[in-house]
Amino acid sequence: MLGNQLRQGLEPLAKQVRISDRVDISDAKPNEEIVICELGNYEAVMELTRDVDAIVHFGGAALETDFETILESNIRGSYHIYEGARKNKVPRVVYASSVHAIGYYELESIIDADSPVRPDSLYGVSKTFVESLSRLYWDKFGIESLCLRIFSSFPEPKDRRMLWSWLSFRDCIQYVTCGLTTPRLGHTVAFGISDNQLKPVDNRKAGHVGFQALDNTEAFRQRIESETPTPDPNAAGTKFLGGWFCELGHPDQEEKSWKDIMMWQ
Amino acid sequence: MLGNQLRQGLEPLAKQVRISDRVDISDAKPNEEIVICELGNYEAVMELTRDVDAIVHFGGAALETDFETILESNIRGSYHIYEGARKNKVPRVVYASSVHAIGYYELESIIDADSPVRPDSLYGVSKTFVESLSRLYWDKFGIESLCLRIFSSFPEPKDRRMLWSWLSFRDCIQYVTCGLTTPRLGHTVAFGISDNQLKPVDNRKAGHVGFQALDNTEAFRQRIESETPTPDPNAAGTKFLGGWFCELGHPDQEEKSWKDIMMWQ
Amino acid sequence: MLGNQLRQGLEPLAKQVRISDRVDISDAKPNEEIVICELGNYEAVMELTRDVDAIVHFGGAALETDFETILESNIRGSYHIYEGARKNKVPRVVYASSVHAIGYYELESIIDADSPVRPDSLYGVSKTFVESLSRLYWDKFGIESLCLRIFSSFPEPKDRRMLWSWLSFRDCIQYVTCGLTTPRLGHTVAFGISDNQLKPVDNRKAGHVGFQALDNTEAFRQRIESETPTPDPNAAGTKFLGGWFCELGHPDQEEKSWKDIMMWQ
Amino acid sequence: MLGNQLRQGLEPLAKQVRISDRVDISDAKPNEEIVICELGNYEAVMELTRDVDAIVHFGGAALETDFETILESNIRGSYHIYEGARKNKVPRVVYASSVHAIGYYELESIIDADSPVRPDSLYGVSKTFVESLSRLYWDKFGIESLCLRIFSSFPEPKDRRMLWSWLSFRDCIQYVTCGLTTPRLGHTVAFGISDNQLKPVDNRKAGHVGFQALDNTEAFRQRIESETPTPDPNAAGTKFLGGWFCELGHPDQEEKSWKDIMMWQ
Amino acid sequence: MLGNQLRQGLEPLAKQVRISDRVDISDAKPNEEIVICELGNYEAVMELTRDVDAIVHFGGAALETDFETILESNIRGSYHIYEGARKNKVPRVVYASSVHAIGYYELESIIDADSPVRPDSLYGVSKTFVESLSRLYWDKFGIESLCLRIFSSFPEPKDRRMLWSWLSFRDCIQYVTCGLTTPRLGHTVAFGISDNQLKPVDNRKAGHVGFQALDNTEAFRQRIESETPTPDPNAAGTKFLGGWFCELGHPDQEEKSWKDIMMWQ
Amino acid sequence: MLGNQLRQGLEPLAKQVRISDRVDISDAKPNEEIVICELGNYEAVMELTRDVDAIVHFGGAALETDFETILESNIRGSYHIYEGARKNKVPRVVYASSVHAIGYYELESIIDADSPVRPDSLYGVSKTFVESLSRLYWDKFGIESLCLRIFSSFPEPKDRRMLWSWLSFRDCIQYVTCGLTTPRLGHTVAFGISDNQLKPVDNRKAGHVGFQALDNTEAFRQRIESETPTPDPNAAGTKFLGGWFCELGHPDQEEKSWKDIMMWQ
Repeated sequence: MLGNQLRQGLEPLAKQVRISDRVDISDAKPNEEIVICELGNYEAVMELTRDVDAIVHFGGAALETDFETILESNIRGSYHIYEGARKNKVPRVVYASSVHAIGYYELESIIDADSPVRPDSLYGVSKTFVESLSRLYWDKFGIESLCLRIFSSFPEPKDRRMLWSWLSFRDCIQYVTCGLTTPRLGHTVAFGISDNQLKPVDNRKAGHVGFQALDNTEAFRQRIESETPTPDPNAAGTKFLGGWFCELGHPDQEEKSWKDIMMWQ
Repeated sequence: MLGNQLRQGLEPLAKQVRISDRVDISDAKPNEEIVICELGNYEAVMELTRDVDAIVHFGGAALETDFETILESNIRGSYHIYEGARKNKVPRVVYASSVHAIGYYELESIIDADSPVRPDSLYGVSKTFVESLSRLYWDKFGIESLCLRIFSSFPEPKDRRMLWSWLSFRDCIQYVTCGLTTPRLGHTVAFGISDNQLKPVDNRKAGHVGFQALDNTEAFRQRIESETPTPDPNAAGTKFLGGWFCELGHPDQEEKSWKDIMMWQ
Repeated sequence: MLGNQLRQGLEPLAKQVRISDRVDISDAKPNEEIVICELGNYEAVMELTRDVDAIVHFGGAALETDFETILESNIRGSYHIYEGARKNKVPRVVYASSVHAIGYYELESIIDADSPVRPDSLYGVSKTFVESLSRLYWDKFGIESLCLRIFSSFPEPKDRRMLWSWLSFRDCIQYVTCGLTTPRLGHTVAFGISDNQLKPVDNRKAGHVGFQALDNTEAFRQRIESETPTPDPNAAGTKFLGGWFCELGHPDQEEKSWKDIMMWQ
Repeated sequence: MLGNQLRQGLEPLAKQVRISDRVDISDAKPNEEIVICELGNYEAVMELTRDVDAIVHFGGAALETDFETILESNIRGSYHIYEGARKNKVPRVVYASSVHAIGYYELESIIDADSPVRPDSLYGVSKTFVESLSRLYWDKFGIESLCLRIFSSFPEPKDRRMLWSWLSFRDCIQYVTCGLTTPRLGHTVAFGISDNQLKPVDNRKAGHVGFQALDNTEAFRQRIESETPTPDPNAAGTKFLGGWFCELGHPDQEEKSWKDIMMWQ
Repeated sequence: MLGNQLRQGLEPLAKQVRISDRVDISDAKPNEEIVICELGNYEAVMELTRDVDAIVHFGGAALETDFETILESNIRGSYHIYEGARKNKVPRVVYASSVHAIGYYELESIIDADSPVRPDSLYGVSKTFVESLSRLYWDKFGIESLCLRIFSSFPEPKDRRMLWSWLSFRDCIQYVTCGLTTPRLGHTVAFGISDNQLKPVDNRKAGHVGFQALDNTEAFRQRIESETPTPDPNAAGTKFLGGWFCELGHPDQEEKSWKDIMMWQ
Repeated sequence: MLGNQLRQGLEPLAKQVRISDRVDISDAKPNEEIVICELGNYEAVMELTRDVDAIVHFGGAALETDFETILESNIRGSYHIYEGARKNKVPRVVYASSVHAIGYYELESIIDADSPVRPDSLYGVSKTFVESLSRLYWDKFGIESLCLRIFSSFPEPKDRRMLWSWLSFRDCIQYVTCGLTTPRLGHTVAFGISDNQLKPVDNRKAGHVGFQALDNTEAFRQRIESETPTPDPNAAGTKFLGGWFCELGHPDQEEKSWKDIMMWQ
């Protein structure tokens, strides 16, 4: 869903947009080039990243899952993306990192982009891997990256946590646009969150990206608060930035049906 | 006066509000329960705090005064409140701390909530005592607290200092409301100040409380500046966050009639 | 041009304004006193600064130039200004420092006012000299100063860098006004920049000055971006806060016609 | 025991030493003046502190106990000491604060003297009260203080925790001596700990006190480690700076016989 | 070589030591159990980590190499180690991280353990992966880790860089021993470096590990400085913490024979 | 006197040493080249700095004096030195900066090398000028500098302040040697102070210079303390790092005979 939003939102930025997915997209527009591609396929990604001016990398597993999937899709796949950028001389990448790279901080920590990572899942670890890899590709090969730690990007906030963690699609697109167009990006880690009242992080260090949020969650507050019970402040899902990811056990554990939780999510 | 404002402002939050004062309140509404109580009375406070969901503690001496009053009302009294919370299993307290807990910082210091305390009076010391006590009750007993360092909460700003230190009643009520309703509070120290132009402190570390000021002092600026002389930047009352409290001597000192100053205030 | 703007903008603050320039000003108003004066002339500056309530020091060379000019106009001249303040008991100075005092920081550094200086030119070094000198005059002689590091103060933004570095004349005047009227200034270093989307510095430590920007560059963005090529993020003029000053060699170097660049500017 | 050590250790510093205790001391030397005094007695403390050049305040309850004792001995008593200093113009106080003022930090936090307090007991809260009170007496009345946060001052280390928390008597005396004789003390918070291998805090901010530890615990390591079981890293008594104080409940709680633990200690 | 040193050095700590290598070890002592094992083999690592009290993980590729090797040996292999710890309830791991996790910092940066990672190679990225993974295993599963960023552990310093980066075998063993025996480790990142004169990092945040270096490089200085040319301060190999790793290109690049450099090393 | 010490101490570093002074030196050794030179003479300094491998710049006025002398000797003179380095391609400069660049910090501030400058005199301002100038010459022209903030370099400590501020000649020479020989210097600010017990600053950020003090003042303590009165902690000369420089008025002030003080010094 976010992918479709990006397709529309980023359209004004380029004459031609190449879109990669694992399955075909039937409704391609004339200025869209559709490429069916597994990120784990090295040669395919080299092709995919040829002759482009910038890469928006939102691919890979989007939730906690087994390590093999994480390793193939998110770790090896992202390495391929950065190798594609290096070999094809693509100067800039916008990468969908995640709040789950720093999910184990308590809300009251109010961290900034330089705080050490505290992933809340194997998924989160893979996000920190790419943040680290992209730092190498900046320091050694001069490829700029925006690692946008998306909090919760959904059509609208769906629970009490999203009242503070929501990033509207419009704001997400704007953030990516800023990452693609700001004159100097270097290697930047930014928190992707709309202008909600509760501000759980300090985003100053991304000031040079030029993002200014347009949305917030106040229009949704009353309904959500009336429909959901008061949260327990000490439950891991309330206490930590990563929310319910912090309540998950290891993906191999059978006793906790975390996949059910994700389905609801 | 602030007390009455809180009565009205917090009414929507609860079905029943129990209000404590040292003297009777004649105009109690049906959903208000009035309790006459000295905070220094242990048993009375245990009763007062029974069967409530949260405590808003604005009691005790509100200005500099002799040590015995401070000790009884603010130190022993606040201990009773926290004991009431612990024994009666009240999970959250909003406490009216004060700028006078950090009154001896110069305006240009731009401190944040982690800066070491620098009280400007015995009153201010008692505020730091409760901030420390509430930290213990969080770390050891799991009781959450908002220590709201109120700067100047009056119906309107009354002098040049309040042009930057004012916290409107509406903003004060909103801050308390945020403290009571934010999903995760932990132990938080926040600066209570409206959205005035001059910003003498850095309030980032309370971002998770979700407070957004609605008021500022610009409507009062012209009148106040025309009615009052230009301040001396090196006078203690101008130089320090605590204002005229920093010009007070010890309450036992006879040579300085600090009580007169307070009366004007 | 900025000088004329200041003449108009600061007029409401004083009954009488004394204006100094190296050449005569023909259109003086009744409440303006024009003084022709070289800042390098000690006696003249002592006269110039007599019987005033505050000094706004925007004089001296305004661009990179040979060391002798810098030494005379900016270093010796500014010393004379501060000596005038000391001898004539002028309690407060607003000084036009510059982004070029910290020009060699990369945009993504997001520095604050306490970050060590990194000048990008002899001109920038002279700005850091005055910031240091004014600190001495505060610590030893009690003269307050606002060192306003002006980024780019022009009638309107002229290139892509100014989309983030612009300080509108209106905001510049307001900043100087705040510096002159805030109750407590001490010795303050502030970044002079309008409320542009891209925020390359952290200005929190000047919160007590009370400045709130009124302008930003969004109205100019489309035109400027359409008229100018995409910048190279690694070019010194894009990479560093100081912009094209970082691309200049030494003023003595013949091989680089930096004066041509400045003329265009 | 520490008291007797201080009597001997500080003897070289003064011609006459006035020693206060709650009971008589039978073995007074000629240069020792013994005063029987309750710190809760205002008049007695005013007498006690008359005509002295400095105060070493190690009095009051030394372990967790009921609030009334804390309030009388440590809070009111210390207030009397500082009032004595103010009224009798005693310029400097060395105060025995405690690790229990910051007992709830985890060992791996490596805090410094500016980290916010996190007391682990009512006793610890009283220590933070005096640290705050002494800051007021410095800022307002110019009385210098060393708040020495003693970790574990015993004849020798007695358990595994003391292998890192021990402050030998010799080092304790030296610290107090430095506090009394360093040319400029201001208001200083320092960590009182010998030069043990494990360094759980950062003591840089007390560098101007001039203390250099002479002792460490290596000579005791083998015996203690062989006599005691391997600790559980997650037990509160291992995890936190405050050790077993963090395992205590409230002094009023009957279900936990914390007094037994202390007796063993 | 370091492996053999560890075998001897850690012997006193355990009754039985299980040693894993990819090839057989012929000289096993009675208290040594040799296991031939590829870290990429999940089942084998589950066996390897069964019934042990702690894990010392120095396995995997030890130099920059192709991504597939890094992925298998260092990323998947280390994941297996941590899974072994989780499944077999091993409470503590000492991991050989590396200076190459932060190799792109300039020497004059003087970073500490909380500075964001800046790997200098794919190898370095894999080290940051394990640091992040082990943080997850601490926050979610309670397994403690020491991530020891070894600088240069060789029998003796071999070049000018090692005059500051050397970690003697004796100090390396001592560091691992401290990691295994300190009462509380949590998740700790430490810099592994002997007590050399030049101190390029700030190791304060590992104070609770209790390591005190015994060696330094002064005995080797004269010989090394006489045998090697003065380095160029701006060469990547001199400028950055990572040394010659920062001069390597990508392992796939043919034009630079980085393997030759390593062989010399 | 320090100059002669440097002549001897630095002799082992070079085959030929060129020594500049304003008057002739009669006892030149064969490997010493004596140049009589005013630093204010541009052409002479260009000659002076030709064909050297490094510059040790200890020239200029060494105490507070009138602005014209400061301007000529310290500001213009140092500019000439750096121009000489640039034009003659000298890659490294060790500059004798001074505690007086940060003299107005209180001892208890425990600043580090990144703390903003707070000069205590025109002399101190000139030191901050050269620190800023040398930063420019590093960022723009690649010339490395050690700005060594010498505290008190005398044959032996002469008063109570020097018990903490003393830098022995031996340690001074060693510091300069480290600056000249460390592999990577960049632009470094360091505090020049021996290993005295009282440590008023945090010198971590110069760790890469490799300096380790050999001396301290303990051998002198007893005599100095017995010969001098106990200092007043609030006297500017005791309170601030800069000592008696902070008690000086402006050099033009007649009412204070600061030159007499210096003579005693």
